[in-house]
Amino acid sequence: MTITPPALSVFETLESEVRSYCRGWPAVFDRAQGARLTDEDGHSYLDFFAGAGSLNYGHNNPVLKRALIDYIERDGITHGLDMATTAKRAFLETFNDVVLRPRDLPYKVMFPGPTGTNAVEAALKLARKVKGRESIVSFTNAFHGMSLGSLAVTGNAFKRAGAGIPLVHGTPMPFDNYLDGRVPDFLWFERLLEDQGSGLNQPAAVIVETVQGEGGINVARPEWLRALADLCRRRDMLLIVDDIQMGCGRTGAFFSFEEAGITPDIVTLSKSISGYGLPMSLCLFNPELDIWGPGEHNGTFRGNNPAFVTAAAALDAYWADGQMEKQTLARGEQVEQALLAICDEHARLGAQSRGRGLVHALEFTDVSRAAAVCARAFELGLLVETSGPRSEVVKLLPPLTITPEELDEGLLTLARAVRDTV
Amino acid sequence: MTITPPALSVFETLESEVRSYCRGWPAVFDRAQGARLTDEDGHSYLDFFAGAGSLNYGHNNPVLKRALIDYIERDGITHGLDMATTAKRAFLETFNDVVLRPRDLPYKVMFPGPTGTNAVEAALKLARKVKGRESIVSFTNAFHGMSLGSLAVTGNAFKRAGAGIPLVHGTPMPFDNYLDGRVPDFLWFERLLEDQGSGLNQPAAVIVETVQGEGGINVARPEWLRALADLCRRRDMLLIVDDIQMGCGRTGAFFSFEEAGITPDIVTLSKSISGYGLPMSLCLFNPELDIWGPGEHNGTFRGNNPAFVTAAAALDAYWADGQMEKQTLARGEQVEQALLAICDEHARLGAQSRGRGLVHALEFTDVSRAAAVCARAFELGLLVETSGPRSEVVKLLPPLTITPEELDEGLLTLARAVRDTV
Amino acid sequence: MTITPPALSVFETLESEVRSYCRGWPAVFDRAQGARLTDEDGHSYLDFFAGAGSLNYGHNNPVLKRALIDYIERDGITHGLDMATTAKRAFLETFNDVVLRPRDLPYKVMFPGPTGTNAVEAALKLARKVKGRESIVSFTNAFHGMSLGSLAVTGNAFKRAGAGIPLVHGTPMPFDNYLDGRVPDFLWFERLLEDQGSGLNQPAAVIVETVQGEGGINVARPEWLRALADLCRRRDMLLIVDDIQMGCGRTGAFFSFEEAGITPDIVTLSKSISGYGLPMSLCLFNPELDIWGPGEHNGTFRGNNPAFVTAAAALDAYWADGQMEKQTLARGEQVEQALLAICDEHARLGAQSRGRGLVHALEFTDVSRAAAVCARAFELGLLVETSGPRSEVVKLLPPLTITPEELDEGLLTLARAVRDTV
Amino acid sequence: MTITPPALSVFETLESEVRSYCRGWPAVFDRAQGARLTDEDGHSYLDFFAGAGSLNYGHNNPVLKRALIDYIERDGITHGLDMATTAKRAFLETFNDVVLRPRDLPYKVMFPGPTGTNAVEAALKLARKVKGRESIVSFTNAFHGMSLGSLAVTGNAFKRAGAGIPLVHGTPMPFDNYLDGRVPDFLWFERLLEDQGSGLNQPAAVIVETVQGEGGINVARPEWLRALADLCRRRDMLLIVDDIQMGCGRTGAFFSFEEAGITPDIVTLSKSISGYGLPMSLCLFNPELDIWGPGEHNGTFRGNNPAFVTAAAALDAYWADGQMEKQTLARGEQVEQALLAICDEHARLGAQSRGRGLVHALEFTDVSRAAAVCARAFELGLLVETSGPRSEVVKLLPPLTITPEELDEGLLTLARAVRDTV
Repeated sequence: MTITPPALSVFETLESEVRSYCRGWPAVFDRAQGARLTDEDGHSYLDFFAGAGSLNYGHNNPVLKRALIDYIERDGITHGLDMATTAKRAFLETFNDVVLRPRDLPYKVMFPGPTGTNAVEAALKLARKVKGRESIVSFTNAFHGMSLGSLAVTGNAFKRAGAGIPLVHGTPMPFDNYLDGRVPDFLWFERLLEDQGSGLNQPAAVIVETVQGEGGINVARPEWLRALADLCRRRDMLLIVDDIQMGCGRTGAFFSFEEAGITPDIVTLSKSISGYGLPMSLCLFNPELDIWGPGEHNGTFRGNNPAFVTAAAALDAYWADGQMEKQTLARGEQVEQALLAICDEHARLGAQSRGRGLVHALEFTDVSRAAAVCARAFELGLLVETSGPRSEVVKLLPPLTITPEELDEGLLTLARAVRDTV
Repeated sequence: MTITPPALSVFETLESEVRSYCRGWPAVFDRAQGARLTDEDGHSYLDFFAGAGSLNYGHNNPVLKRALIDYIERDGITHGLDMATTAKRAFLETFNDVVLRPRDLPYKVMFPGPTGTNAVEAALKLARKVKGRESIVSFTNAFHGMSLGSLAVTGNAFKRAGAGIPLVHGTPMPFDNYLDGRVPDFLWFERLLEDQGSGLNQPAAVIVETVQGEGGINVARPEWLRALADLCRRRDMLLIVDDIQMGCGRTGAFFSFEEAGITPDIVTLSKSISGYGLPMSLCLFNPELDIWGPGEHNGTFRGNNPAFVTAAAALDAYWADGQMEKQTLARGEQVEQALLAICDEHARLGAQSRGRGLVHALEFTDVSRAAAVCARAFELGLLVETSGPRSEVVKLLPPLTITPEELDEGLLTLARAVRDTV
Repeated sequence: MTITPPALSVFETLESEVRSYCRGWPAVFDRAQGARLTDEDGHSYLDFFAGAGSLNYGHNNPVLKRALIDYIERDGITHGLDMATTAKRAFLETFNDVVLRPRDLPYKVMFPGPTGTNAVEAALKLARKVKGRESIVSFTNAFHGMSLGSLAVTGNAFKRAGAGIPLVHGTPMPFDNYLDGRVPDFLWFERLLEDQGSGLNQPAAVIVETVQGEGGINVARPEWLRALADLCRRRDMLLIVDDIQMGCGRTGAFFSFEEAGITPDIVTLSKSISGYGLPMSLCLFNPELDIWGPGEHNGTFRGNNPAFVTAAAALDAYWADGQMEKQTLARGEQVEQALLAICDEHARLGAQSRGRGLVHALEFTDVSRAAAVCARAFELGLLVETSGPRSEVVKLLPPLTITPEELDEGLLTLARAVRDTV
Repeated sequence: MTITPPALSVFETLESEVRSYCRGWPAVFDRAQGARLTDEDGHSYLDFFAGAGSLNYGHNNPVLKRALIDYIERDGITHGLDMATTAKRAFLETFNDVVLRPRDLPYKVMFPGPTGTNAVEAALKLARKVKGRESIVSFTNAFHGMSLGSLAVTGNAFKRAGAGIPLVHGTPMPFDNYLDGRVPDFLWFERLLEDQGSGLNQPAAVIVETVQGEGGINVARPEWLRALADLCRRRDMLLIVDDIQMGCGRTGAFFSFEEAGITPDIVTLSKSISGYGLPMSLCLFNPELDIWGPGEHNGTFRGNNPAFVTAAAALDAYWADGQMEKQTLARGEQVEQALLAICDEHARLGAQSRGRGLVHALEFTDVSRAAAVCARAFELGLLVETSGPRSEVVKLLPPLTITPEELDEGLLTLARAVRDTV
């Protein structure tokens, strides 16, 4: 397939220089279905990016689409602030029945605004309010969002610099395996906490991703997460799991922290929670933390009711039983095998892979290769992106609903792209 | 009409205490069309709130609904990050043709994430980055959003306290008429700027609403806005107009600052920009400010394509000529007359009104009356909310597309609610 | 008198560029007595600067000198941290007997370190600790010191920029007459405090100088100070009077706030408190504010015992009766008459004077004239400095112990310097 | 010796609760000479504290005393701001001749105000100004002072809490051996620096003590200091050595960093620099860093000329040759042997010692023992203090000029105090 760069004129003349994905993928996309997008010239692309994890059920999933159109057709409430609506009630009940109750999770549900960063901001505010402390511990290579509160606990220096003010009140700790196993887990963190002379402001909370997606597909081991949860409990810090990218089944179970058997104090969800790529986010927390005053946090689009409709439909369709989790783990196995094969084939390039569920990374010793592979993959009709502080990782985030055949096709394309860029 | 409080159980047991509107309006809303909502018991409500200004074209506007369903039906891209899509191109071209070019506005367009606070965060980041300064001047009773950057330039003490950290880098200045005309405009602000010993950190930018919606419907005079723009130019500060609530025709013209004849350096739009109540926001700025690096600010839902579709349709339908503006001013006149009549009738209560276009306030000397009026209005089937630091104002924000008859009906209900609460 | 610029070599080659006074006064001073300094070439200078107000009793005052030498000779404790010493006890008893008790001031005494900025830092810490709030209100053109806490409430932009970080947690309010009487006193400040939507973080305290020395000899009226004290009481803010430069009799009474009849919650003293130019400072506060834990604030030189000795001797010698105050007011009258005469003589230059006690300012419409006058005065053997944000004021701070004849001599020299620079 | 607690009345009734040393040493001290203090009841105390390291040459050292009295007698300038004086010139020349030139140190000299915290504040300001960055790296258990800038890089939680505001812009790193040798030196720090996603704000500078005095007598190895200096150079961070307590010969050489063979970019000196316990401090830095504007940092007592006189005399008397260094190392050896003997004797208590030059620590497994030992030592006529975040260390800081006999006497008393508190 050869692609003629489209006339990007209005994007180039009118849209801000801040745009990024459109630079690596110089096509004008028009339609999408499942794991495939089509551009305006009719070229088809297999999607191993899934809206940065927002399209776990694929593009325009027909089950959700039906529910969405029905809702719009019958003039269901579209914009509801935090008014009670039938759509919100249906979502809350479904979320409780399908997600919370079966997992024995006692959370209250907050609609903090429809984006991930809204949820993180709400989580941080609540933790600070509850504990009466300002300091938050985050981890190296964390990504939590771009508004000032979230950005302060995000690692990327380039994005931090965009703030234009010093980002303070956060302290980074080493993520799992950050120091290549040369240091016992939490040795440094716990020493800082126990030492009244360490200089660390006593944290209100710790915020963590179980798998760091933007940070390079860094996978925390279950035992590391358990030790973290234990540390938080012993040292009176709230544990916030930011499950915005890794929740909603990306790693297998609905919540990515289930595997570790921990129960965070606060959880953020967004991206795939609506199931259809519609803006929606949740902040979940233990009931005793629910000390918000009415309206103390708000937001115009926190009641995006069409998203509630597709969210409830997605939960009903995919999470009423354990099939989804099994299927994701099986697909993940398929990816892993393929990546191992690529690594074997290119052993002298120093290629290695890692991942969990349906999030995987392919990394090369030569950091520039990841971008080259993604560029070549695009030419070959596969959408796949880099990740990590130096964009050194090829990140694989296919829809969870992808078929084994599509997965094979994409993995073969990826293998070819690697081969073509040697 | 009598309303039986619905069973709110799941809202009460599962949803966070942070919910607010649902407390004042104890109904479970189900459908909506134009200026009317219907709850699950079949009660109908006339809407003078319009999603806090997000539904300028009414609920589920049929023209936009058609475009939206067509787009969904044909599997148009739903979630597009900042990829180029046909829907985004159509929006950009329409926005340019219908909004920017006719007004001779040279702005670049940034999609900063789909909520107002995303747009404000982006605007503040950009201003700080461009000027290399951290300080922002805002105004008394400003409201700009709930993430940390926006909250720091928001006035409300209750909402500020939710941050859990000291909100810094912002300094409030008196909004127009804040000191009841006893002080020349900008006397204090300009003195601080010209005096090298004043202690004010030289600001990167000033952020202002032309009419403060959440702050109590405080209307800035055009000459005050012009003087502010002039001050910004003379003192090397960027002028940011937050037109999230007052833009998209709320005050008559598409941008609320057009009346004053000023051209802000940066403009934020959200709420009604999608036209359909879908999450969407824009940050507009002069091209020479566009120093963003690719991806320096981002956000998962910044490419909410269904919103681009309805946004383009709304611009086409309502802004291709000057009818909308004329109609809004006429409807505003109708509201103003009705409010004056109410004030006359209740002169001894110290009632007074103010407003511009289709945003109006009714205020009473007794600050508790506004809440009582709103509560009574709800019982009478009219949705109307309070505003201001002490919730002392009844705020009127009907859809711009409301018919004169509906407007009359609502204003009569309001008059009755006032009468009933004396 | 003609002065040959001395060989400043080691100062120029070895001392940092941060040095300042030595640039305007290019002499190498060797000895001093009373109101006169002598340089190494034998030139004599009359001192109208008095160590920026640190030498109220003149250089090397013989009474204090005797006590100091005796103490050193007998090997009295020199460096005492906060150990109990006989010298400290003598000072405390004298301070109580001579200063606090006769004025009915109930203050506890803290030794926060020997410099003014140590005292201000301690005062701000204590106010924040007591009130549990971070925000401090200061005034335009305030000067409180150069360490980060004090600098954040100091107005001068050049000095603030030296911090290298954004200075936050402080908000400037207009000092008395800052807006030339066009705005009622405290209108803006009180409005911010009473309005829950103003955006001002509720302050822990207000810090004020009764006369701003570095800020341009701005004299607060007693009624303004009383209104400020009243505002603080009504709005639950602590009132801190920074009396570092204006205390110890500079304005007549021992404390500069006595004239206004107010009792601040916290008072800082330094500069002339030791009487001999030795580093010493105090932080005084109402007993109920004394919630410090032992050692919660400390400092190596907080027990500068030789300074305690001269401080006690100065209080004994000058403040046991009311003579000092009377004399200062009389000398101030003498200065005022002379300045008025200069202003009359140079009416067309727009000269004007102001002051209180023995702190006075001579200001010209042409802001560059002040520096020229000071430079010419130096050539004529008079040390006098500029002040104000643009160095637009000639500041007169002669020792309180200056004789009428010396005062006359200096004032004649000043008049000549003005004449010579027309 | 038995001591009757003196009447502390005025201290208890008038002085703030913040006082601390006087609580552990309930005596009223009157005179002092060399290594001995005498209280008002005639009791004599041997001093192993030396003004927290401010009295390296003993109390009221006769050589310095002579110079000081002569200077005062002849009416030398006492208070000189930053005017050129003969006393300052003499000090600068002596400092250059005796300290800087023989060590090939190219530093410019700044007089930042007379206390240690003034010097640290100046150092931090300068580093931030030079590098245009706000972040500073400090170390666990660091102590740099009590004004806000210095306190933010100080570790002690109790003292930090006194600030009343969040202390930000600083990040603690592990001091040498903080993690008991389980982690390679600087592994964590360097990883944070090299990783663009680590979340550490790029530091302007690193501030370090070579031996942490307040933090528990933690001694950095020379190779650790060299690696730190190397890291700073490679990663474009300024290296600030805070030599306030450990400089002026405390560890043997004049500067404590000489042993490691490093040349910091900025050095702070205070405490013993005047030699006589008079307030004085210096900030030294490489000439290319001297970008201060005149007066950009200032301070009333930065020209404490009597301190310049004693400082020059001390340098002349003690540092013109290498005798002082040799003697200190010999005395240190004597202390070390005695402490080892104590540890041997009390092996079952888990006693251990450490130190360098004439700063040593005696630590017990039972953290409460240190305070008991100090209390008993006081009763036995020896002044010795605890140190460390839990006051778990007995800190020995005798004057450098102490005789071997006095040292023996004190060490025997200490041994007895240990024995008495078993």
